[in-house]
Amino acid sequence: MFPTQRERPALTRGAAPMLIRVINPNTSGAMTELIGACARQVAGPGTRVEAVSPTTGPASIESHYDEALAVPGVLAEIARGEAAGAAGHVIACFGDPGLDAARELATSPVVGIAEAAMHVASLLGRSFAVVTTLGRTRGQAWELADRYGLRARCRNVRACEVPVLDLETDPSARARILTECRAAVAEDEAEKVVLGCAGMADLCQALASELGVPVVDGVAAATILVEGLARLGLATSKRGEYAAPPPKPYVT
Amino acid sequence: MFPTQRERPALTRGAAPMLIRVINPNTSGAMTELIGACARQVAGPGTRVEAVSPTTGPASIESHYDEALAVPGVLAEIARGEAAGAAGHVIACFGDPGLDAARELATSPVVGIAEAAMHVASLLGRSFAVVTTLGRTRGQAWELADRYGLRARCRNVRACEVPVLDLETDPSARARILTECRAAVAEDEAEKVVLGCAGMADLCQALASELGVPVVDGVAAATILVEGLARLGLATSKRGEYAAPPPKPYVT
Amino acid sequence: MFPTQRERPALTRGAAPMLIRVINPNTSGAMTELIGACARQVAGPGTRVEAVSPTTGPASIESHYDEALAVPGVLAEIARGEAAGAAGHVIACFGDPGLDAARELATSPVVGIAEAAMHVASLLGRSFAVVTTLGRTRGQAWELADRYGLRARCRNVRACEVPVLDLETDPSARARILTECRAAVAEDEAEKVVLGCAGMADLCQALASELGVPVVDGVAAATILVEGLARLGLATSKRGEYAAPPPKPYVT
Amino acid sequence: MFPTQRERPALTRGAAPMLIRVINPNTSGAMTELIGACARQVAGPGTRVEAVSPTTGPASIESHYDEALAVPGVLAEIARGEAAGAAGHVIACFGDPGLDAARELATSPVVGIAEAAMHVASLLGRSFAVVTTLGRTRGQAWELADRYGLRARCRNVRACEVPVLDLETDPSARARILTECRAAVAEDEAEKVVLGCAGMADLCQALASELGVPVVDGVAAATILVEGLARLGLATSKRGEYAAPPPKPYVT
Amino acid sequence: MFPTQRERPALTRGAAPMLIRVINPNTSGAMTELIGACARQVAGPGTRVEAVSPTTGPASIESHYDEALAVPGVLAEIARGEAAGAAGHVIACFGDPGLDAARELATSPVVGIAEAAMHVASLLGRSFAVVTTLGRTRGQAWELADRYGLRARCRNVRACEVPVLDLETDPSARARILTECRAAVAEDEAEKVVLGCAGMADLCQALASELGVPVVDGVAAATILVEGLARLGLATSKRGEYAAPPPKPYVT
Amino acid sequence: MFPTQRERPALTRGAAPMLIRVINPNTSGAMTELIGACARQVAGPGTRVEAVSPTTGPASIESHYDEALAVPGVLAEIARGEAAGAAGHVIACFGDPGLDAARELATSPVVGIAEAAMHVASLLGRSFAVVTTLGRTRGQAWELADRYGLRARCRNVRACEVPVLDLETDPSARARILTECRAAVAEDEAEKVVLGCAGMADLCQALASELGVPVVDGVAAATILVEGLARLGLATSKRGEYAAPPPKPYVT
Repeated sequence: MFPTQRERPALTRGAAPMLIRVINPNTSGAMTELIGACARQVAGPGTRVEAVSPTTGPASIESHYDEALAVPGVLAEIARGEAAGAAGHVIACFGDPGLDAARELATSPVVGIAEAAMHVASLLGRSFAVVTTLGRTRGQAWELADRYGLRARCRNVRACEVPVLDLETDPSARARILTECRAAVAEDEAEKVVLGCAGMADLCQALASELGVPVVDGVAAATILVEGLARLGLATSKRGEYAAPPPKPYVT
Repeated sequence: MFPTQRERPALTRGAAPMLIRVINPNTSGAMTELIGACARQVAGPGTRVEAVSPTTGPASIESHYDEALAVPGVLAEIARGEAAGAAGHVIACFGDPGLDAARELATSPVVGIAEAAMHVASLLGRSFAVVTTLGRTRGQAWELADRYGLRARCRNVRACEVPVLDLETDPSARARILTECRAAVAEDEAEKVVLGCAGMADLCQALASELGVPVVDGVAAATILVEGLARLGLATSKRGEYAAPPPKPYVT
Repeated sequence: MFPTQRERPALTRGAAPMLIRVINPNTSGAMTELIGACARQVAGPGTRVEAVSPTTGPASIESHYDEALAVPGVLAEIARGEAAGAAGHVIACFGDPGLDAARELATSPVVGIAEAAMHVASLLGRSFAVVTTLGRTRGQAWELADRYGLRARCRNVRACEVPVLDLETDPSARARILTECRAAVAEDEAEKVVLGCAGMADLCQALASELGVPVVDGVAAATILVEGLARLGLATSKRGEYAAPPPKPYVT
Repeated sequence: MFPTQRERPALTRGAAPMLIRVINPNTSGAMTELIGACARQVAGPGTRVEAVSPTTGPASIESHYDEALAVPGVLAEIARGEAAGAAGHVIACFGDPGLDAARELATSPVVGIAEAAMHVASLLGRSFAVVTTLGRTRGQAWELADRYGLRARCRNVRACEVPVLDLETDPSARARILTECRAAVAEDEAEKVVLGCAGMADLCQALASELGVPVVDGVAAATILVEGLARLGLATSKRGEYAAPPPKPYVT
Repeated sequence: MFPTQRERPALTRGAAPMLIRVINPNTSGAMTELIGACARQVAGPGTRVEAVSPTTGPASIESHYDEALAVPGVLAEIARGEAAGAAGHVIACFGDPGLDAARELATSPVVGIAEAAMHVASLLGRSFAVVTTLGRTRGQAWELADRYGLRARCRNVRACEVPVLDLETDPSARARILTECRAAVAEDEAEKVVLGCAGMADLCQALASELGVPVVDGVAAATILVEGLARLGLATSKRGEYAAPPPKPYVT
Repeated sequence: MFPTQRERPALTRGAAPMLIRVINPNTSGAMTELIGACARQVAGPGTRVEAVSPTTGPASIESHYDEALAVPGVLAEIARGEAAGAAGHVIACFGDPGLDAARELATSPVVGIAEAAMHVASLLGRSFAVVTTLGRTRGQAWELADRYGLRARCRNVRACEVPVLDLETDPSARARILTECRAAVAEDEAEKVVLGCAGMADLCQALASELGVPVVDGVAAATILVEGLARLGLATSKRGEYAAPPPKPYVT
């Protein structure tokens, strides 16, 4: 029978680096760069991080509609990464868009930043709260917590009401995020804060210092998880639901 | 303040009929016709049913990947229906693809056939079982039961392992479906059977006669639900998560 | 084997109308009339609505005790409706009193207004809140949300503390209901409001206009659901728990 | 403020005995006697057990319909017991009929035998299974496990398909019950068996000896719980949902 | 087969009294005495209560670390009680430390005060709140509510922030506890209060009088439960998880 | 305010390696060596793994009793590791013994192998099954799945009935484990297998090859998780429940 446990990569110095592809599901190049930089900061010495984004789709993802239109581009990037021999893929948007389909397509592991952040946060004690961008995305964050089995650990999902693309440009953004983080700790009694948008990844360390509690950024969390899975030779089970999709005609 | 409870349609004889658009998310015309016929059979006298399918996308939906690629086409049909003044929309694939995004886009009610069938089945007693096409889609059906709060009522999700497009052409299909339905009643002790694919809609009455228990077809169920919602003047709440998506640039 | 999927009624013009019986479980005639009027407003052209109430029982239902004493009268009405060839029954009290027993007795579909309102509300987005009469009935509403699998969608159950029979006579009632509805939207972030008493049915449209969110009245919701089920030929499964009760001596 | 924690009864020898009333909700006198005998066997020295049954209602309870018609009689017995100064009430039918309403009516504690058996069983390890009479009542047993928070501990609900009133007269009844109990232990891996009908109370000790696992009879369990609550001075909270029902006209 | 249902003790006057051992898991003698006195107050006439504490371990239990170090001493006391022929054991610390292991060791029933209090509280209506000592133990109380299936009934876990050993000596302790109890009733709408520390057992009656709602002390609750189980001849099932631990070398 | 987000370790070549301590909670030296070897195989180039075991406690952990007696030794090792400047700790027994207390004691991250394996498995698709040693430990595995929110993903917990210390010496052990793994895939339809004992760590790769599905070993999974957390500068939140335990007298 075919081995689905992949060969574990050599960890010796001379070996070629493992390629981890971090996919920004929106088409904003500045955010792709920010995400790539954050992933590179935490990747191990034997890992090469490539940050990419789809060639088509919405400039930011702030609705179910945006997410739906972003997914085909994400899946094209997964296919591209597989062709390039990627050891793993990160989907770097907090709604984890296209994650199930990506797991069908890829033979190497795929991790979304929401699931990464929530699973990692649950290894650091009992409770966390999510601080995200627009209030209208809170339902989605709760639903993901549900799907991943972690709703009971999630004290609250708070929104700072800063649109995704203003995170880097709006001078008040950082203060508004900090305000919600403080409220998560003081009012919701969250032990940790989970950042609910890939565009907040660069704020993680500073927020942690100011808050005095761990702050989990999904981009960093997903990067170390995918790297770890690849090192263990683990990938999505191809038995059952996540086997390669059956081939069929697509009208385009 | 703007009224989100829509004006209730006139029920008098002379009034123009309400338009319900039933969207087949795959690009198989034969299935679109079958679905439309089933919806028309149950629609009330004041309702006009239009069955449509996207111009692009997969020929059938049998994986998360297929579903992901079908969604943009479904959303285009929602937009088209809104422009045509549709009183409501049915998404006629048992994975309810694109339902959240469709609710953002539409001002009239949108119902998926999986949610319709499961909610309707739960009005007929305690338990039901789903009989679907391929085994690999069973995880998705369970997840929808979870999302809709109805997992405890779902005794099992069974697969007849007939591909979607063979439902009409494979002469053994009907027998295999019946076998699983019988097992659902006898072994899973399901009080009702829910058909897990829009392509089974035309089998509903015959299966019920043979099984001696109610059989719920989602196409019919969603049609009467959308029609009912429209008659009550009810549609998706536009306050919060399902408000119209924020406008933004889309790279295409 | 006996067919439990009932014959679908003819929808042609000349056919005799379907009879839907709406049972007000309390013995207050004014409320029966109000409920009947609301049901008639939304019933389809081929449907005849008959609003009835038991000949014995409490004047209003505001406790588990009231409910327990109202149930035998409700069941007598179900039996009467079956004898009259009713196509379906609505139990028009938000506690859904006697619903399980009614499903055993009836061969045609039975729907309670709490289940109807909660299921319908969950087709309109993610969350709802219930606004009911007395605070002491809130536990019951939560329990029903649990039973129907919809607790996670229920943001809150609020009470306006107006006794049931004062809803029509207390001039401050409407204002107090509106206050709780507003709080449900603003504080609980409910996307929709569910009216928690049949006696509020006539306020539905006006509240929706004032609130700017959908307001679901269970009487209207149950009417369109029962009518829809009847049109689909669906009724309670008679296999297992809801088969006709075994005959036996009753000491009276 | 009024004290709801009741005065703890004197435990000295000369004191008048506490009256515990055990209500058999059906009108079968033989079963009332059996239940009374079982309760008396386990009651403490300072307790007097009175076993009663309603003057009206079904001869046995085997459907939701039977249960609904039995409840008014149960409530009349609660009222009678309160007037007689009962220290506590047991409702001795595994569906716990009328329990919520009884708690409203009574100022002394009320315990149902299903809740008693399930709570007690959960103090004896992790899992239990219920063995009941007719298969059609299994849904109700599952629902009670849910309500009491103990579904995860319930491995199965099995039915021996012996009607309630045949338990004492059908010579094969005991063997059929034992067969299901053995299957609960061997196949369901239940650590304990809960007897799902008051009419099985007298079999408890013998079944336990044959099975080699604890067998919990709800009549005995409820008797010691009510006695214990009374000794602690504890009764239903009268703040909120279970306050005395508001007085009102009842048409009879 | 061996009988796990134990012989029911004689309830006649001349019989030797049943021994219930109440184990205070910390090494504070004053608290052991207080706990013993409270247990004796509620035990029946045929019961002898012995209150003990381990010879090693922490002076109080206010962290997972304290609890972990207290458990071996608790288990030694269980073994001692078994050797002395105890009819049952109470573990008198609200974290129920060592409960699973104690059930393996003992052949007689073992009940923890948190499970006792929560199960008893759920027999008195719908909801309760816990008032405990230090805020850092609140997570543990929630987790126990989860384990016992009673989280949905628990409205809140409140902390008075009085260290365990100051409960008896800090003159402000009682007032701070009362403040939290009042808030539990008024703000959390709890119908009952559960005392979250064995050291509060002596306050139970007075708090109930002041609050006007039932107050449940776990020491008293566990005492009557263990006594009742012993009277019924019930103990932990020895089939499966809670069989005697397999013998093996222990390095000490 | 104190920074709880720890400084991220230098990832440059010349830096001193991070110390990860892998604690075998039992006192069997052979198993400690096996565990250490497995952890070293997957640790990154900058990590030094030290495998240790307590100086006191049971030779293997096969009951709640064994676990309770093992925990103090585990905590002593945590303290020793903290003193040695460990960057993280793994608790390498599938019951995750002492995990909560260890998180209080340590300032660096602590991960148990059960939580590690279950969280990692849930990143590889939808479902998994656990294959463990003795059947009596199955309840504990289910409880952990519950605690970690992953019960819905756990299809079954199977036991091969090989005692822990026979895993390496019993020549039939490997075959019996494989048999259960195959049943997990074929009968439980698990997409992945989770090994339920640290003593099975060395079988992981071979089982995966034979089964054709991913096999997750908790020792390897916890090692890469702790290493990843350390690299991100993340550790247990010290705000609230997991703050350092309050100092107090311990009688020893």
